Amino acid sequence: MKIGKQTIKLENTPKIIETCSVVGPRETEGPLNIYFDIHIDDIFYGEKTFEKAESKMLKTCVDNLLSKASTDKEHIDYIFAGDLLNQCIASGYCIRDLNIPFFGLYGACSTFCESMILASLFVNSNYASKAVAATSSHFCSAERQFRMPLEHGNQKTPTAQVTVTAAGSALIMSKDTNKKAPHITYVTPGKIIDMGITDMTNMGAAMAPAVFDTVTTHLQDTGRSPDYYDAIVTGDLGILGSEIVCDLCKDYGVDISKVHKDCGVLIFDKDKQDTHCGGSGCGCCASVFSGYFFELLKTNKINKVLLVATGALMSTVATQQGESIPSIAHAIAIENEV
Amino acid sequence: MKIGKQTIKLENTPKIIETCSVVGPRETEGPLNIYFDIHIDDIFYGEKTFEKAESKMLKTCVDNLLSKASTDKEHIDYIFAGDLLNQCIASGYCIRDLNIPFFGLYGACSTFCESMILASLFVNSNYASKAVAATSSHFCSAERQFRMPLEHGNQKTPTAQVTVTAAGSALIMSKDTNKKAPHITYVTPGKIIDMGITDMTNMGAAMAPAVFDTVTTHLQDTGRSPDYYDAIVTGDLGILGSEIVCDLCKDYGVDISKVHKDCGVLIFDKDKQDTHCGGSGCGCCASVFSGYFFELLKTNKINKVLLVATGALMSTVATQQGESIPSIAHAIAIENEV
Repeated sequence: MKIGKQTIKLENTPKIIETCSVVGPRETEGPLNIYFDIHIDDIFYGEKTFEKAESKMLKTCVDNLLSKASTDKEHIDYIFAGDLLNQCIASGYCIRDLNIPFFGLYGACSTFCESMILASLFVNSNYASKAVAATSSHFCSAERQFRMPLEHGNQKTPTAQVTVTAAGSALIMSKDTNKKAPHITYVTPGKIIDMGITDMTNMGAAMAPAVFDTVTTHLQDTGRSPDYYDAIVTGDLGILGSEIVCDLCKDYGVDISKVHKDCGVLIFDKDKQDTHCGGSGCGCCASVFSGYFFELLKTNKINKVLLVATGALMSTVATQQGESIPSIAHAIAIENEV
Repeated sequence: MKIGKQTIKLENTPKIIETCSVVGPRETEGPLNIYFDIHIDDIFYGEKTFEKAESKMLKTCVDNLLSKASTDKEHIDYIFAGDLLNQCIASGYCIRDLNIPFFGLYGACSTFCESMILASLFVNSNYASKAVAATSSHFCSAERQFRMPLEHGNQKTPTAQVTVTAAGSALIMSKDTNKKAPHITYVTPGKIIDMGITDMTNMGAAMAPAVFDTVTTHLQDTGRSPDYYDAIVTGDLGILGSEIVCDLCKDYGVDISKVHKDCGVLIFDKDKQDTHCGGSGCGCCASVFSGYFFELLKTNKINKVLLVATGALMSTVATQQGESIPSIAHAIAIENEV
């Protein structure tokens, strides 16, 4: 049922039964290493191209998710997935081999929450009894598609972020499922917000206003205050974007700084790893939630999370044509024992 | 409620209250000309680039949809949209200006049915009272992204199709809405099917097996025979793909040939317009349904339609890496007076 301006209350509170995370070499060296399910030490993952490596990584992630949940792919009703590559080929070629009815999504780095929103709404309405949400990103496939050939060895500006090589997936089922698991209670799909930022090496600044819009709308729609949540987790604002969104909220009279965490900040050690403003990419939020935050929820170290994945919806063509960066943030409330 | 293998029954049978179609110069010269709402005679639509022209065309289409339905954009709960451009920028920049919560989709030319499925399920479950589905394609932006620079003046092979320059959109609302309109009764989201076709100038052959899979699954799930429908309308198989899908169904014991129509075949006059196997692109199915078939439904010339949009999910990078063309088809049953 829709409540307020743009939030949906999930009366049947579907459960996140299981998650899986797969990460690459740089993410394995990061501080969250022990929380990830599978670590890949070869950036090509045994394939001939970065794109095929990314697709295989996503496949490994979904296969392992189903294996962890002791579920066959034949029992998955629908899969919701997308990625950063042109025409979302990482997802397309991964899901071709799974033989599961598929909804292809493009929400840039907001895709993990977009896919979780749709999967949980399908379960909430009995359109599906088991639905999977999945996404991936790969540093090398993203660099050569969006930025520069790796062989250039280009320097990054201080505001830039590093696309993570990672995939994350979640299996969503009815609350009647006989397993203790966190529930999805509310979702707040976002609007596109564009404050005119044109610097594609400063995505945090471009995306922060979209997070501000979605988070404040979510709090207003649900009547909750930021401290209702143990953590308000953004996808990949990075260090600078995180500062901006906390400032924007504060100026608006809402202090999220005490509970705010950002997956892009958490996944790397900024002092030791030379990752500038932090991690980015669909796989950042997907792997950090699926690995780290899901573990904290399962072990009751935290009990209420608002997960807000954030995407920048530009293309290289749009940037070359002088366009600014339109951004979007989708939020999903995940809570223990509803 | 899910029924059978992969079909969902919409108990609350949402209505397609209104549609809008916008087409370019070549489509204006075609046989369906009088059915389209808006005709654009300048391929640049007053913009400096093809991509901006496509985005503006989609914006015109959604604006005119809301105007035809006497609805303000503030009253639209969610919009579901996507297109063929890298990172779906036609939709992104269009929807930035609309300020409506947005789900970005990538289903290639299957996007119109994917967006209609999600919009109608949202209305069916009271997640939205008004939802919009929209998509577009543009001959010139598609040619330069997927094929050759227009300046080359390349010859097309006989199996090739022509990306249409068009946008289509639909407004979906509750069946309680006080206006006579066709209802959405069942949706069948598709699986990815890849029979190994690698010729990107023969998309009809690549996509036909996906249509076969979705249509036969839909008929099995609903217990309907092809002649239940006045028309089984495919998105853009073109002339060759249409022959293939009718043959595949016939070999399987299901004769759809008497009721089968294809938007890619209908939109152009193959003898006068030199369009080879016909039209393609997201905008093909979107404009032909929104213009032609919706008019036939409203005037009771036909009463039961199965609309099956078909997408080929490859990218130029995947093709260069030797990959075949994975395809998908999503079906939606639209009926008068349920």
